[in-house]
Amino acid sequence: MNHHGVNQTEDSLSLQQAMGRCCCTREATPSASHGSEERHVCGSKVDFVFPDVPFPSPRIFAATGEEALRLLVHRHHEYLLKSPIHYLFPPDKEALEKLVRRAADFVVEMCGGPRYYTSTRGEPRMRSRHFPTTIDERAREVWLICYRDALKEAGFPLPILEEFWNWIEPFSIRMVNRRTTWDPPRRVPFSSIQDAFAL
Amino acid sequence: MNHHGVNQTEDSLSLQQAMGRCCCTREATPSASHGSEERHVCGSKVDFVFPDVPFPSPRIFAATGEEALRLLVHRHHEYLLKSPIHYLFPPDKEALEKLVRRAADFVVEMCGGPRYYTSTRGEPRMRSRHFPTTIDERAREVWLICYRDALKEAGFPLPILEEFWNWIEPFSIRMVNRRTTWDPPRRVPFSSIQDAFAL
Repeated sequence: MNHHGVNQTEDSLSLQQAMGRCCCTREATPSASHGSEERHVCGSKVDFVFPDVPFPSPRIFAATGEEALRLLVHRHHEYLLKSPIHYLFPPDKEALEKLVRRAADFVVEMCGGPRYYTSTRGEPRMRSRHFPTTIDERAREVWLICYRDALKEAGFPLPILEEFWNWIEPFSIRMVNRRTTWDPPRRVPFSSIQDAFAL
Repeated sequence: MNHHGVNQTEDSLSLQQAMGRCCCTREATPSASHGSEERHVCGSKVDFVFPDVPFPSPRIFAATGEEALRLLVHRHHEYLLKSPIHYLFPPDKEALEKLVRRAADFVVEMCGGPRYYTSTRGEPRMRSRHFPTTIDERAREVWLICYRDALKEAGFPLPILEEFWNWIEPFSIRMVNRRTTWDPPRRVPFSSIQDAFAL
């Protein structure tokens, strides 16, 4: 029996030896490897996989029009400024208005509206553009919850809300650039927030 | 011709359409996708792969002994305190001494010495233990260069230096928890720093 109370075969011993010298995972179990003449390797791994981001279809813009999307983005930022991540946004009114205008340009275009964003700013490259700002898993969740609340006020039809959410939810994972846990960023499926939109 | 001046076939059009709605990569090219009725997906991807970490063999401890490894870790921290990442270390003398002692315990044990670290601290889980500290790609490179300088003074035989470096170099990539670029953390092969150890 090893210290996990498991019968140790030759196979599990060699696995445990390998893990005994693992530097980083939570499963690392320093043990029988000590003093061994073997060379142990902590194998290559990935942190997590950025999930697919299904972009919205133009039917969102067709259903909402431009002004409703701009209002949505405006409200989203009102919530953000009252949220625990308010410090990520510029205190200067003019800089903030510029940021909200650009964010609205992006949302309008991605939902099927005029090419306001790419014609003025070029390729979206949103992860790259967000690198200067430290965004951890928790900040992303706050950002999403602010969107949920802004969407609640938007009064869009449920299929439109769902399509929009199914875009921004995995999209927001791409912005995470500060990891504070081995756990991948938490998925927040539409079904888990749908009740917020009940009449 | 599309806006990159390339003849556009049906194949490249559909690729470009897919990329036209990509949210995050530098290659994203918003273009013909605009107004399309198709639903575009920015496919799942990984940030980068943590490379293998080959742990040192016990011959390092056998060659150097405990005191030389402890002195190495002590010198490493002297360089760190004079480096651009000095702010990552505790200003309090006692806290710093504790940190250096633990780091030395870890190095001694991983190189084949007594189980000082795991007997007092448990599983190494070094990535997890470093999550509270923001470590970006640049901080990791500074940390490595400080090790290069500390190793230079250690006077270990070249094969020992190489084996040690080939452990800490990929090991240090596991500690990176703040990404500031799509580029993976830069590899720093022993061959690129070997000249520092020339007699």
